[in-house]
Amino acid sequence: MIPRYTTPDFAALWSDERRYQTWLEVELCACEAMEEAGTVPKGTAASIRGMKLDVDVARIEAIEKTTRHDVIAFLTHVEEKAGVPARWLHRGMTSSDVLDTSLAISLRDAADLLLTRCARVLSALAKRAREHQKTPMIGRSHGIFAEPITLGLAFAGHYAEIARGARRLETVRAEIAVGKIAGAVGTYAHLSPEVEARALAKLGLVAETVSTQVVARDRHASFFAALALVAASIERLATNIRHWQRSEVGEVEESFGVGQKGSSAMPHKRNPILSENLVGLARVVRASVIPALEDVALWHERDISHSSVERMIAPDATTTLGFMLERTASLVEGLVVYEDKLRKNLAAAGELYFSEAVMLALVDAGMARQEAYVVVQASAMRAWKGDGTFRDNVAADPAVTSRLDKDALTRCFDIDHALKHVPAIIARALASKGDG
Amino acid sequence: MIPRYTTPDFAALWSDERRYQTWLEVELCACEAMEEAGTVPKGTAASIRGMKLDVDVARIEAIEKTTRHDVIAFLTHVEEKAGVPARWLHRGMTSSDVLDTSLAISLRDAADLLLTRCARVLSALAKRAREHQKTPMIGRSHGIFAEPITLGLAFAGHYAEIARGARRLETVRAEIAVGKIAGAVGTYAHLSPEVEARALAKLGLVAETVSTQVVARDRHASFFAALALVAASIERLATNIRHWQRSEVGEVEESFGVGQKGSSAMPHKRNPILSENLVGLARVVRASVIPALEDVALWHERDISHSSVERMIAPDATTTLGFMLERTASLVEGLVVYEDKLRKNLAAAGELYFSEAVMLALVDAGMARQEAYVVVQASAMRAWKGDGTFRDNVAADPAVTSRLDKDALTRCFDIDHALKHVPAIIARALASKGDG
Amino acid sequence: MIPRYTTPDFAALWSDERRYQTWLEVELCACEAMEEAGTVPKGTAASIRGMKLDVDVARIEAIEKTTRHDVIAFLTHVEEKAGVPARWLHRGMTSSDVLDTSLAISLRDAADLLLTRCARVLSALAKRAREHQKTPMIGRSHGIFAEPITLGLAFAGHYAEIARGARRLETVRAEIAVGKIAGAVGTYAHLSPEVEARALAKLGLVAETVSTQVVARDRHASFFAALALVAASIERLATNIRHWQRSEVGEVEESFGVGQKGSSAMPHKRNPILSENLVGLARVVRASVIPALEDVALWHERDISHSSVERMIAPDATTTLGFMLERTASLVEGLVVYEDKLRKNLAAAGELYFSEAVMLALVDAGMARQEAYVVVQASAMRAWKGDGTFRDNVAADPAVTSRLDKDALTRCFDIDHALKHVPAIIARALASKGDG
Amino acid sequence: MIPRYTTPDFAALWSDERRYQTWLEVELCACEAMEEAGTVPKGTAASIRGMKLDVDVARIEAIEKTTRHDVIAFLTHVEEKAGVPARWLHRGMTSSDVLDTSLAISLRDAADLLLTRCARVLSALAKRAREHQKTPMIGRSHGIFAEPITLGLAFAGHYAEIARGARRLETVRAEIAVGKIAGAVGTYAHLSPEVEARALAKLGLVAETVSTQVVARDRHASFFAALALVAASIERLATNIRHWQRSEVGEVEESFGVGQKGSSAMPHKRNPILSENLVGLARVVRASVIPALEDVALWHERDISHSSVERMIAPDATTTLGFMLERTASLVEGLVVYEDKLRKNLAAAGELYFSEAVMLALVDAGMARQEAYVVVQASAMRAWKGDGTFRDNVAADPAVTSRLDKDALTRCFDIDHALKHVPAIIARALASKGDG
Repeated sequence: MIPRYTTPDFAALWSDERRYQTWLEVELCACEAMEEAGTVPKGTAASIRGMKLDVDVARIEAIEKTTRHDVIAFLTHVEEKAGVPARWLHRGMTSSDVLDTSLAISLRDAADLLLTRCARVLSALAKRAREHQKTPMIGRSHGIFAEPITLGLAFAGHYAEIARGARRLETVRAEIAVGKIAGAVGTYAHLSPEVEARALAKLGLVAETVSTQVVARDRHASFFAALALVAASIERLATNIRHWQRSEVGEVEESFGVGQKGSSAMPHKRNPILSENLVGLARVVRASVIPALEDVALWHERDISHSSVERMIAPDATTTLGFMLERTASLVEGLVVYEDKLRKNLAAAGELYFSEAVMLALVDAGMARQEAYVVVQASAMRAWKGDGTFRDNVAADPAVTSRLDKDALTRCFDIDHALKHVPAIIARALASKGDG
Repeated sequence: MIPRYTTPDFAALWSDERRYQTWLEVELCACEAMEEAGTVPKGTAASIRGMKLDVDVARIEAIEKTTRHDVIAFLTHVEEKAGVPARWLHRGMTSSDVLDTSLAISLRDAADLLLTRCARVLSALAKRAREHQKTPMIGRSHGIFAEPITLGLAFAGHYAEIARGARRLETVRAEIAVGKIAGAVGTYAHLSPEVEARALAKLGLVAETVSTQVVARDRHASFFAALALVAASIERLATNIRHWQRSEVGEVEESFGVGQKGSSAMPHKRNPILSENLVGLARVVRASVIPALEDVALWHERDISHSSVERMIAPDATTTLGFMLERTASLVEGLVVYEDKLRKNLAAAGELYFSEAVMLALVDAGMARQEAYVVVQASAMRAWKGDGTFRDNVAADPAVTSRLDKDALTRCFDIDHALKHVPAIIARALASKGDG
Repeated sequence: MIPRYTTPDFAALWSDERRYQTWLEVELCACEAMEEAGTVPKGTAASIRGMKLDVDVARIEAIEKTTRHDVIAFLTHVEEKAGVPARWLHRGMTSSDVLDTSLAISLRDAADLLLTRCARVLSALAKRAREHQKTPMIGRSHGIFAEPITLGLAFAGHYAEIARGARRLETVRAEIAVGKIAGAVGTYAHLSPEVEARALAKLGLVAETVSTQVVARDRHASFFAALALVAASIERLATNIRHWQRSEVGEVEESFGVGQKGSSAMPHKRNPILSENLVGLARVVRASVIPALEDVALWHERDISHSSVERMIAPDATTTLGFMLERTASLVEGLVVYEDKLRKNLAAAGELYFSEAVMLALVDAGMARQEAYVVVQASAMRAWKGDGTFRDNVAADPAVTSRLDKDALTRCFDIDHALKHVPAIIARALASKGDG
Repeated sequence: MIPRYTTPDFAALWSDERRYQTWLEVELCACEAMEEAGTVPKGTAASIRGMKLDVDVARIEAIEKTTRHDVIAFLTHVEEKAGVPARWLHRGMTSSDVLDTSLAISLRDAADLLLTRCARVLSALAKRAREHQKTPMIGRSHGIFAEPITLGLAFAGHYAEIARGARRLETVRAEIAVGKIAGAVGTYAHLSPEVEARALAKLGLVAETVSTQVVARDRHASFFAALALVAASIERLATNIRHWQRSEVGEVEESFGVGQKGSSAMPHKRNPILSENLVGLARVVRASVIPALEDVALWHERDISHSSVERMIAPDATTTLGFMLERTASLVEGLVVYEDKLRKNLAAAGELYFSEAVMLALVDAGMARQEAYVVVQASAMRAWKGDGTFRDNVAADPAVTSRLDKDALTRCFDIDHALKHVPAIIARALASKGDG
């Protein structure tokens, strides 16, 4: 969570001020629930709310230097500010009741910020998919020319994948929107499931099924895994853009700002640095998964080893993914497409991608598949080495012409036929909601 | 996937024989779908099915030495065995149509084997949770005595967590049960979405939304993450058992087989080796997540870098988790509980866990919380250092007795009251289905 | 690199000010080398040095908003400040010449800060090892009482391990103290190996053997792996302290500050939170290794995907490890040892740890090992279950007494004999320098 | 460690037979050392050696089913075969004395197999570096044409990096060639440092500085990190080959076997599948680092959680890296270079790579650097967009011609000058031994 990769909303979300405000809100909602249950005098929370306390971060940190305990420092500070009614706060609660419930709120809110950005990325991808649904492009497997696709199909593939990522985010948003107000070891020794349920409902959360001192950490690990999956899907998109932009391909280009400089040494360079940056950041988000999984096996009713991990990876991974999604959206929106280069590269493939059509036509005409493979490969390989075009070579091969007449052969070389299902695939993708 | 950690069902699932049988089944179902679509002569698949081909693993491997391409080697072999009708197999398909669809079947079947085992683990945990729902146990946070729980509550916590893991497995089972028969770059150039849908339906799968040459790898990464989450939850259970069994605690013990030897040097030792083993294996399953995430960003319409990874981690991670679940089930079922040690350890906590009850009673009686904290801590700390019992110390402290009479103080020391919500928590956990 | 886990020296090391100062120093040293080579007018660097430029972080960031290129923004700023002579800076250089050489300086300096802290940790461990070289302690394998060790031996083991970690840090310090001033693709097109060597020597660095645009990233990955190894060794120490402090063991305790509060709910608690914190932070440092390894395979003569990763993990991992080492040192220095609990736990092992001595004596007296094992196990198991002491049981077993007389049996129960080699082991460890 | 990626030497190294033979050898060397120390009758080991025992894997596994302890099963089997003298084996030793010392031997031998392969890879890279030291190639940063390098320089860069990897392997070979024969908790209770030193010397090992029950696991983690570093460097080489082979680049091609088939659908395809495979396998080797680091923090004097991890990752990671190195060597040896495509791509860069030379000449002629940058960028950008060549554009720009005459401008466009330092860099690389 370094300034370079932090947007203002995430900076606010993870600020000290917000954290303490959230703690206070958790305490007040718990207090209200206790008031309803009759264990705390009616009106306590309302009177504190009425004071509109300004939480003083520096003062809390000063107190914590002595107590070496952050929640006690916070409560001491609130008592300093609010006086007598504050003594009713936190009744029967343990620090983790506040901390874990607050963390649930922060992560849930982070998920919401991420989902909004996913929607923007999806919208951008959908637009580009529709725009280029019929723009032919040579497909490549292993980096080698394969058969034609369209640029829109490639965008649609990324759309479908990121839509799945967004759906996973929704799933883990629900998994993480779980708090606890269940006391030191989760037994509600001085509380009750009813107080917990009411307090959490006010906060938009539900209760952990079985708490220890803390909410179970499999939820958090699942959350970070979902972040890493979205990051990995952005990495795939960014990797493709890097390939598409490389000098020899030149099919797309990242938007280049006025005044932007590509290189201190080579003034003509326009580098896909946004995409490269996204690939790097995906590594950072991915790196949060293992520590989150290592946090699951806390000892007995909890140890605090997870805490330092989460203090770092929770802001880092969510903020970084937020930045990635924002950058991805503007990258896709602004991506410059060079249709002439798309056509030129497709032409360079020399129609070899019709080899399968010819092979299948030969099989349909009665040739054994292995034989057809050999026949077609011969013409293809000659063309590949610069000896004639593939179309001419097969047209001159008696093994072919003895089975396929000129019309039949021409039908094998029809790109519209090869791409006829593409609009339907794209439509299917854009109608998907990350399911299937 | 080493023999030591491989059960017979997973050995069979990942055998060469099964793999080639699955490939053949995919080819035959695709063939049947093409027959229905009219692109392949009716009865082709039936005639090949009638031959009840024995796929010869060694022969395929011999052919692959020349072709350096596994699917072509397989098809060549099938053509050797089945003759003319086999030439209609694989029409318009690419190798990945077979490979990825087959992998989907294998991973889906692995998920089913895992889910069955999860059910057994859950059943064992539920039984122990009910059995010990009222067996008091000292809860520990930071490894330090905290407040009482029951052993059944601990089991219920593990139950709820593994139930969430099982639910995640169900989710990724659906995510992974996705095949593709869409040709070299996913455009159905010589196929159709209808043929694909019919063929996959026969196999119990649905179609990838947008294929490249392959099914998108975010699905697989999500799958492996779900495995790692279950493994991490087992790690937590195993870690707790290791703690419970350690010499100074001695509350439970792994079942020790007749003839089993704990140590070559120390004949009396009974070590929690099953649990330690489970902790190690969790590391292995967890280690599959990062490579699976790295596999997502394939280049263009695919590269084959994911393949070698999956050849190793797919059998390894699923088989290892299968072994872990089986071992966990028998571990929980056979776990020996020493109730006397549970009682003894609880007694050793010296009722200090009632300190919060005393503190709250003082607050209810009008003392400020911070003051109550200090008062109670004084008695607690004296007891902790061996100077009197906590109960006697507070009973002798005028700061306490001036506010609480004897009855009020006695009520603070009631373990049944402290544990009164536990049966409800356990019931709630066992009724959960991994939700919430 | 969050404030909570950042010490002032690391805050300074990774500050924007320091970074730009280092960049300037690299430019000036390169300039001086070029002056010596005659490609830049003599005195250029000296005249700029004479200006004692204050680098203005905010101004550079403002310029970068337009150029979207950090080094160009920096150079533009320097030219604003220094005027004409600055035009000679960066001659023939590429941005990475500055960036990678500066990063080498930062990481080397970080290594030095870490090595100083390692020395303090080693000194603390050595002191405690000597202090407790003869303090008996029950050794535990699998958490189960095994044979006696001494507390000093345990400290010596940690000493030897962290000494190895420090030696690895020294190795990677040398690996990382490697810069490059070799131009856009490492060919010295407008530079020379001599200029590079001279400039780097001024900075205390040597030249990359073969640069691309950047220094090779295997060096950085090796660096982060070495950090993670030290972190893992701290994790082992912290894990042991957590075990030693747990309520049932109670052999050591973290120093507890005046005013420190262990729990908001349970005032008597003294939790090993420093150790738990160290365990968590080890996860964070460890998590930097995989992204660093993923950074190695840059495309062609470089892509910039590593940059965002390093902007985050370089400060994070070094700073966090710096904090860990500092905390470890004070933890070890202040650790409170409870010798009475050490004795009590040793006694609780009931001399079962002498079982091997008895077994060996029986073997020496002619019994087959397997038979001796069974004989000893019988007495041990009875004792383990509370039926007599082990010593009494073997003394009453005719299978034993028929072979060993009373004196021979007594000699088996001699703890001084069992520990006689310990001082030599400790001496060997403290004399080691991480070798062997 | 699946057959597909296992070479015979590694299959033998990790076979059950070899493992038990190594155990026996450890026991016999320890026995000999004890004979020399007088604690075991002279001639014991020699008499067992004379029997030339065939260790029966199946029998040991059958015994282990009862004992659930592998070393005890092994010893029982040896006693079955060797009779009375075998009772003297393992005297005072613990299972880990055998297991860890044997593991040290296996990993050391694996390191030797890997180092031999590294030498072959280095030899192949050196040959190609020399062969192509003057073959010009367009260098690329960010995938965009930068300045010229030579193909030999690229090979030399990989050489230098893998040489560093080999040196790191040598370092960890020394770190891991460390055994222990120190008893149950490392105190030599029934042994001595002298016996250990003698026994280990016979096995080519040295003694652990401070053992617990086991050798410290930081050594193993360091070992696996070194493997991952070599794998990452192979990944970089393989990634470059994939780029060089892609259709639009076409500068090199993996050797294509007679009969090899690139695709079941597209007969003309020649895919860089060996390189893609290497990239995938690098992920697998990398994935062993985290579990190895997680293994370090064993509890107290050891727990057995590391064992299951090492049973899987030790064979897997070493064998996979062995396969990678072998494949890399033949890949480099057989790589087909297309010099015409190298020339063609260089030409396509349109001499824009001389832009820096022009810029520097302008600066030398008195223009401010920022101004020179703008001037050159204008001509470069026009050329980049197809408006004239860069050379013609600058030659027609008065801002240039007013400062540089025709000769001065021509000197800027001299590729030999740009590459004049390359042979020296290559020579320096090939003379390096992984140092510096």
